[in-house]
Formats: sequence, C-alpha cells, structure tokens
Amino acid sequence: MVKIAVDAMGGDNAPGQIVAGVADALDICGDIHALLVGREEAIEAELGKYSPDRSRITVVNASEVITNDEPPANAIRRKKDSSIVVGMKLVRNGEADAFVSAGSTGAVLVGGQTLIGRVSPQLRRAALAPLIPTEKGVSLLIDCGANVDARAVDLLQFARMGSIYMEHVIGIKQPRVAIVNIGTEEEKGNALVKEAFPLLRACRDIRFIGSIEAREIPHGGADVIVCEAFVGNVILKLYEGVGSTLIHMVKQGMMGSLRSKIGALLVKPALKDTLKVFDASEHGGAPLLGLNGLVVKTHGNAKAAEISHSLIQCVSFAREDINGKIKKSLADEEGQSVLQED
Amino acid sequence: MVKIAVDAMGGDNAPGQIVAGVADALDICGDIHALLVGREEAIEAELGKYSPDRSRITVVNASEVITNDEPPANAIRRKKDSSIVVGMKLVRNGEADAFVSAGSTGAVLVGGQTLIGRVSPQLRRAALAPLIPTEKGVSLLIDCGANVDARAVDLLQFARMGSIYMEHVIGIKQPRVAIVNIGTEEEKGNALVKEAFPLLRACRDIRFIGSIEAREIPHGGADVIVCEAFVGNVILKLYEGVGSTLIHMVKQGMMGSLRSKIGALLVKPALKDTLKVFDASEHGGAPLLGLNGLVVKTHGNAKAAEISHSLIQCVSFAREDINGKIKKSLADEEGQSVLQED
Repeated sequence: MVKIAVDAMGGDNAPGQIVAGVADALDICGDIHALLVGREEAIEAELGKYSPDRSRITVVNASEVITNDEPPANAIRRKKDSSIVVGMKLVRNGEADAFVSAGSTGAVLVGGQTLIGRVSPQLRRAALAPLIPTEKGVSLLIDCGANVDARAVDLLQFARMGSIYMEHVIGIKQPRVAIVNIGTEEEKGNALVKEAFPLLRACRDIRFIGSIEAREIPHGGADVIVCEAFVGNVILKLYEGVGSTLIHMVKQGMMGSLRSKIGALLVKPALKDTLKVFDASEHGGAPLLGLNGLVVKTHGNAKAAEISHSLIQCVSFAREDINGKIKKSLADEEGQSVLQED
Repeated sequence: MVKIAVDAMGGDNAPGQIVAGVADALDICGDIHALLVGREEAIEAELGKYSPDRSRITVVNASEVITNDEPPANAIRRKKDSSIVVGMKLVRNGEADAFVSAGSTGAVLVGGQTLIGRVSPQLRRAALAPLIPTEKGVSLLIDCGANVDARAVDLLQFARMGSIYMEHVIGIKQPRVAIVNIGTEEEKGNALVKEAFPLLRACRDIRFIGSIEAREIPHGGADVIVCEAFVGNVILKLYEGVGSTLIHMVKQGMMGSLRSKIGALLVKPALKDTLKVFDASEHGGAPLLGLNGLVVKTHGNAKAAEISHSLIQCVSFAREDINGKIKKSLADEEGQSVLQED
C-alpha cells in the first residue's frame, strides 16, 4: 500500500473536489491508502456522497487552514494544527509516503523544506517541478519557485532529479535536458548559466542537449528544462497567461458575426479537444523534488481529475523508488567531485 | 525632415520588403528623408518597382552584409563596409537621426552601443524595448537583450526611459510601470528585484504600481514592464512560442473532421482579425533606448508594413525629442541622488 496524505482543505474547490478526486483514485488504483487531512466533519460530509472503500481511508483531523494571503513561513510556524502542517508531519514521521495539496504554494514549499527535510545531505535545495504542456506532450520545468538566487551546482542537481522523474514517473527514456538561455551558442547567457553549462555538459547521468531558447519550450524542444526559480516562475505563469488570453480572444473574436458564431458551434468540439492537450492538469500536480518523502502541489483551482492524477503520480513515485534513485545519483555526484579534485 | 537610415540588406525579406516599406512610409509621411544603406544595384532594382519621391531618398552604398550566424562583436569590428556599420555611422556623424534594421539582433545591439554611444554619461546601459501585444493594446518590455547581469540602478533607468517612450511615442498618459516578480508582495523576489523595488517606488518621474506576475502581462497589467535582459528575453520569446504553438494547434485541431473544417472556413476571417490584434509588428520595431540617436530593431521576418511603421515611429521619436527628455530625466535623477546623500 502507498500511503498518501491529502490536504482536504487546500485550494478553491476544497473539500468537495478533493474528496471526490481521492474517491476516484481509490477506485482506479487498489494500492492507495488515503489519509484525508482536515476538518473531520467537513470531510465526512463529502465522503458520504461517494461509496469509497473506507478500509483504505483514514480521516486525520486538523482544525486550522492556511490561506493564500498569509506569509507562508509564519503560517507554518503558527498554525500547528493546519491541514498542511499535520499532513507534512505524517510524511516526516513515516506515517505517509506522500502529501498532496492544492493549498498555498508558499506554505507547501516552506513546509516541505522545514518540516520534511531533504532527501540527502548532498542536496542543497529541493525544487518545484511542474509539468508543462507542449506540442509533443509534456516537459518538466525545474525549478519553479522553491529557491531564489540559486547557484550553478543547484541547477546541476535539479537536472539530475528532473531526469530521474521524467524517465521513471512520466516514462520518457533518456530525457533530453536543456538549460534555459537567451541564445543557443555556448558563450551566451548570464553568469549563472555560463557557470552551470559546463557542469551540465560534464555530467554523465543526464542527456544534456545544451541551451534552449524560451521560444522552443512550447514546441517540446527538451524534456527537462532547467532554470533558476525566478525564470521558471516567469515561464510557468506566462505560459498560463498567454494561453488563457489567446483562447479568450479567439473565443470572443468568434462571437463577432453571425457567420463566425455558426462556425464557432461547428469547431467547438475540436477546439475543446485541442485545448485539453494543452492542459497540464491531466498529468497531476507539480512534485517538490528532493524531499525525504514526496510532496505534490496541484493547482489552486484543481478539480477531482487533477487530484486523482496526483495520487496516481505518487504511486508511480513510490513504486519506482524515485527518492532512492535521487539519493544514489547525488552520492555518485559526490564521488565524481572527489575524482575531479584528485 | 527626419533623416532615417535604413538597413536595406537586413532580415529575411531584404531588400524587397525593406524598400517597399520605405516607399510606403515616404507616401504616408512627407517629413521623412530615407537613406537606404546596402548594395546599390540591388536597392536601385527594387526602387524601380515603385515610384517614390526620389528627392527624399539617398542610396548609400555598403558592400557587406552581417549575417545572423556571425559572432556580433567580431562582425561589427571586421565588416566596416556592412550595411549595419555604415548605417550606424551615419547616425553617429549626425547625417541621420535614426537607423532601422531587420538584421542580426546581436550586431544591432553591439553596434548601437559601440558605434553610436550613449545619450548621456549618467546612463549606464542602453536597453532594447520591444512592444508586446496584450488584451488591452501594447506594453513596453524593457530590457530584452542589451545587457546581462544588470544592476538595480539600471532597472530604474530602464523604467524612466520606458515611461518617456510610452507616453510620448505610443501616447499613453502616465504609463503604469511595474517590475516583473514572482509574487505581488513587496518582500517577494530575488536580490535584484528586492534592491530595485524601493528605487522604483521612490522615483517621482514614473507611475510605479509595484510588482507584476508574468501571468498578468498578457492581460495588460502594466504599460511599462521592467526586468533585466535575461528575463525579458525569456518573456519575449515565450510569448512568441506559446502564441504560435497554440494557434498552430487550434488550426490543426479544426482540420480533424468535416464538421470542424466547415466551421474553420466560417471562423477564418474573425480568427484572422483576432490574431492581428495579437501581432506586435503593427506597432513597428523595438527601439534601443538610451543611444545618442535612435536605433530600431524590427523582426528578422519583417515585411513592408512593419518597416513602414518603424519609420513613422522614428518620426514621432524625433518630433517628441525623446532623447532630450531622457537626458533631462537622467540629469534630474543625478540631482535626486545628490539630495538623498545630503
């Protein structure tokens, strides 16, 4: 059994869609035991709407909720009985293998790093690694929010962790790793990229294909896209912003004349299918890689399907022993450094 | 008369579309004198196709062309008779007020800074400032490529120059200035943003509205969007990449069934109008702000319309004495610093 703690109170659609997603996941996968964390009576009321296998559900009461408006570090310190703090402690104490939350990104990031801790002393920083949709499927964008002002060695560790995740959870053999840059020539870039580039090229555990310009990301130019968190955050949010703006404008534009209104009715199903391809929530949430356990952050507006996918993602993560593989990779890295120093 | 040197050899559609655009601009605006720089016989052959007012055209021969593949600094140093070097020298020597090129971005950036020089000794760095389309119109993104590893004082100067340009060339009264950040709270951000934020807030010449998340850029959340060049480059290229990918997918999706094919025919004109709104080339090229003269970089694939718009843009720039206003603003800044130190 993979034991997954789920923040029943996090996000815009809690607890209804969270509980619905958990019920779906339990139906799909017989190996999940879910620990629903939050206000007991609210959770029970939602559970009453489904007929899930109660032998695989534990409700863990947590009386407080951390909101998006609170400074994350403060909230984690003060709200000891919040669903995020209680859920993360279940992971820290080994009572759960993973924790899934649609709640405050900041609180999930801070909580993950302070309450659960890192998978290995060699790892400097954990990284938030969402999947972003491309023409060809999905790419992993690492890092997107856990650390500002990262160093070159961090980017190398992100590349290793991201590669392992894409290969063993998403199933892409020998994923292509690229670093976000302002040109494809090696001499291009800021100080951080210039320092990280040779480290990535020298790393034997990854398939480094060089620099990627932001223009090529949506075309699926790489499977693992390495960047520091500020740039990653800009990419992730601009992706959403340009996408939603364009789709809104296209839909609005079609409503301008009778002719195009009729056309819009006819293209609607095709358009819906296309936009579904460009919807990352199909692939579950963003893992916070490098923790001693797994934390998955879903979108704040996640519905049952994304929650359910996130739980399945946790099962793959546990079965493939991703953390064991990350530990081994980071230990090898240490070995390599020692060799290089010799 | 505003004297505008134009790189007749730069970009994918040179010299045909370049000369066509110049001919259009001369028709639209009686105050332009164009200096077409490049291979004389090629330019004359194109001019023969139109009947422009030859009294307002000078052909300046330049035998060499700088390509996109060459390292820019090298190319500028070596190819003394290239259209970019010859055109920029016309600006430096006061024989032209502005230079427009669709050629190598790197060469235009390097050439602008080394051959023309800065508008004022107070300015540390010139900045490339393209207009990007939004739901509400356009925003100016500054800086997008002239400098890596910028400092906080650079961002303040970018904000001042960008504000002046948006107000007096694009016509947006008291443009809203925002800094790209990973959240809207003041304590968010990397070291550079945290240092620049109070400088921007304290500046009396601009209307600073705080941080902007990348998600809000396409929604038109600010008129002048300040960031360092690496981030600006990522934003600019991802804008293009997500836009073109989505449009491609929407078009392809519509070709999937007979029903949607018929619908596609009906929505085509509306879709075309919508996408035109989201096309920055309507507003001319990207100015390189802060030079002792004006350099405008258009898209490499610019056609006649973008070239023509860029020439008109140069006329507004000269008439509104943007460089005079930038000089004054930077001198005031020096005054403010002196006051602050007292």
